[in-house]
Amino acid sequence: MTLNPVTPEFESELRAQLPGPCFGEVTPGYLEEPRGRWQGQAGLLLRPGTTDEVATVVRKAHEARVPLVPYGGGTGLVGGQIAMEGPAPVLLSLERMRAVRGIWPEENVMVVEAGAILSDIHDAASGVDRLFPLTIAAKGSAQIGGNLATNAGGVNVLRYGNARDLCLGVEAVLPNGDIFHGLKRLRKDNSGYDLRNLLIGSEGSLGVITAAALKLYPRPALEGTALMVVPGPEAALSLLALGRDHLGEGISAFELMHRTGLEFLNETMPDVRLPFADLPDWFVLIDIGLARGLDPAGALEALFAEALDKGLASDGLIAQSDAQRQAFWAVRESIPEANRRIGSVSSHDISVPLSVVPDFIARGNEAIAALEPYRVNCFGHLGDGNLHYNVFPPMGEMRGAYVAQRDVVKRTVHDLVHQMGGSVSAEHGVGRLKVEDLERYGDPAKLSAMRAIKAALDPRGIMNPGVILRG
Amino acid sequence: MTLNPVTPEFESELRAQLPGPCFGEVTPGYLEEPRGRWQGQAGLLLRPGTTDEVATVVRKAHEARVPLVPYGGGTGLVGGQIAMEGPAPVLLSLERMRAVRGIWPEENVMVVEAGAILSDIHDAASGVDRLFPLTIAAKGSAQIGGNLATNAGGVNVLRYGNARDLCLGVEAVLPNGDIFHGLKRLRKDNSGYDLRNLLIGSEGSLGVITAAALKLYPRPALEGTALMVVPGPEAALSLLALGRDHLGEGISAFELMHRTGLEFLNETMPDVRLPFADLPDWFVLIDIGLARGLDPAGALEALFAEALDKGLASDGLIAQSDAQRQAFWAVRESIPEANRRIGSVSSHDISVPLSVVPDFIARGNEAIAALEPYRVNCFGHLGDGNLHYNVFPPMGEMRGAYVAQRDVVKRTVHDLVHQMGGSVSAEHGVGRLKVEDLERYGDPAKLSAMRAIKAALDPRGIMNPGVILRG
Repeated sequence: MTLNPVTPEFESELRAQLPGPCFGEVTPGYLEEPRGRWQGQAGLLLRPGTTDEVATVVRKAHEARVPLVPYGGGTGLVGGQIAMEGPAPVLLSLERMRAVRGIWPEENVMVVEAGAILSDIHDAASGVDRLFPLTIAAKGSAQIGGNLATNAGGVNVLRYGNARDLCLGVEAVLPNGDIFHGLKRLRKDNSGYDLRNLLIGSEGSLGVITAAALKLYPRPALEGTALMVVPGPEAALSLLALGRDHLGEGISAFELMHRTGLEFLNETMPDVRLPFADLPDWFVLIDIGLARGLDPAGALEALFAEALDKGLASDGLIAQSDAQRQAFWAVRESIPEANRRIGSVSSHDISVPLSVVPDFIARGNEAIAALEPYRVNCFGHLGDGNLHYNVFPPMGEMRGAYVAQRDVVKRTVHDLVHQMGGSVSAEHGVGRLKVEDLERYGDPAKLSAMRAIKAALDPRGIMNPGVILRG
Repeated sequence: MTLNPVTPEFESELRAQLPGPCFGEVTPGYLEEPRGRWQGQAGLLLRPGTTDEVATVVRKAHEARVPLVPYGGGTGLVGGQIAMEGPAPVLLSLERMRAVRGIWPEENVMVVEAGAILSDIHDAASGVDRLFPLTIAAKGSAQIGGNLATNAGGVNVLRYGNARDLCLGVEAVLPNGDIFHGLKRLRKDNSGYDLRNLLIGSEGSLGVITAAALKLYPRPALEGTALMVVPGPEAALSLLALGRDHLGEGISAFELMHRTGLEFLNETMPDVRLPFADLPDWFVLIDIGLARGLDPAGALEALFAEALDKGLASDGLIAQSDAQRQAFWAVRESIPEANRRIGSVSSHDISVPLSVVPDFIARGNEAIAALEPYRVNCFGHLGDGNLHYNVFPPMGEMRGAYVAQRDVVKRTVHDLVHQMGGSVSAEHGVGRLKVEDLERYGDPAKLSAMRAIKAALDPRGIMNPGVILRG
């Protein structure tokens, strides 16, 4: 499929159709990504202010066969927002479309435009005493359109589901410029194929999401947080099961962490206060939210007492104040930054069936140790079977010396994940980083169907070419 | 698109490739549907025992351009399983594929074949102390493959979601005979387009689901049920909000019913014991399930006391035993049968945004009353904004006299639903019954995308032709 570059004629035709504020300057930030691995290119930056303006841009790009890269907060970790090959594309940034179009607290629904920043959505929900539970480390700059395009996960998936589960409807511009008006505020709607879920997770390759109807939740009246030291991942899983037995859906987050993460914090971020005098090998952060009339600290104490009794925990801390809750969470939330400062050889966002998590960790560690004395920081959303299994240079060495080893490390981890029925792309998406992985591990019938769908909806291949499927 | 009939050659080629038990006799049951409206046709009944055998059938039909109708429990209400036009199709029944392939209680996952009957799945889940929450009136004969193909809803959607939300992965045979191996037991998997959700709700028009990985839940330790008389739908919504405030996610079902439903029970099913001496105009059934250590009856009493105080309820009954819970549920579950015995002029499975439910009911009743002195039985899943708004002949008259009025009644109701941002197909699907409605009310961009997807995945148009989209 031949794509065309942005030409002066293309730009001037758009200038004749769109108001001035739609045109922006391509500053370096638009071409970088959080891990500094790739450098993008752009032929033109467009920042439409309305859905009709988005449709104008897409229709024009479709007619001229000019590639388009939808651009959200730029926080994606798999290069979905970074076009390196082919003609320099139009960057279609949703940054000016950030309105809350409506909130219906009595329906637990909010309709927002795609450029709305995740933390602003949290604030808007709080303003009507509701919770929008999707939360990720990049919430201060990530936009909901990108969260939906990548089906973002995060720490609350265990209780509330991922971005997909939190979306009732979308408005989107399809690759031919047609506007899909799908902003329904309905809990049940079986009227035809599930175009919403096809767009969610398609990473901008099947259309541009311009607005979404989001599910809100009552804010849990009372919340509590604990850290518990566990003998290992197996015990952590049993503790999760025990916790569900005690608390039902009350568990909002259940995060597994390893001693390596604490060591990294010690080495790179000494300001983060560690709540343990002796660093434990494995520990979990448990966050709960309960309806009124219940007692979170008491519930966590009862859970801890039984866990202690059953040998599922050996030590524990239950937050006694909001400040302590935040301190516990700061440990978890600082680990990605500590990882970044240490510099990984290869990072892996993987998931496996819950019950094989302990075996995966044991076999993964063994396979990695057989390569080099790497340091492994394995942590993540245990309740979802989603681990960030990140491999770092041996103590005292720098990643630079191991760049050539990245592929063998990645292959070792991903082969094992695939063999154990897992996914090599759990919550970050495929982007441009994992296109080859998808070809290697993906189901062939699914890949053929995906290619047929892409060709059917975007016959000219203009939408984010090279993402998910080879361009 | 020209489709071919089943020929003796077609059949004999299949007989050469498939074992004897795959061939069955087309008894009348396969050609009927629950409301007795349509009569189907079949050129051949095939009952494969394995996924590979399903693939053989589909591949063969693809090659020969013979239409295929996937057949589950036959309980669908929109004619999705009934082919009336075109060459008599192959009926592809999943009835012999009903194995539970595996249960992982520690993961809350079960993998079952598509022909498994819903109530058998309930039993299998109970057997490992887990809950599979999808439940519908036809659970004793409906098959999970059909539940997924139609994205079935039911009474527990409020708490646990619909069939879509309860499925982690599917195995399916695509229209060209390829097998999609998508039976992952993962809570997070962002590896490419969401083919699972595209198949779910496609009513067999994009492929045949052969197995599914289903989400299980802990069984609520303690359950409780109440009936509360409410001043009207508006108060019922406020009572739901109050209940969520009290009980968080603890509310499993919240069903609205009207006096007309009780009158129908009196008239047609006098064995069903009504729990009210004076029939109330509006009442709700509230079902809750709580974790251990909590007190459902106490919680319902506290809720009722506050509801009484706030004028949201005027009378209430809290079940004191399992027998009473069942008696309360029997009222709700007998209403569809009572409706059937009365005989509706037109039945509507609709949804609207939650906050407009009261206004919809008021305006709907007014519009219907302006036509004839019809009796309206409006009931359903208030928490989902999903109402069964069914219109019956005036007292003492029979539906036969009003057959000619069906279209005007339906149009009156559906126009109003559409105007109020709702869906004319909430939980039963589109099937063959609502193809025209979809054309009238569906988003044009969505319909174009659907047609493109159908043509891309099923270029010969063999899969359940005429369902959802005009063949």
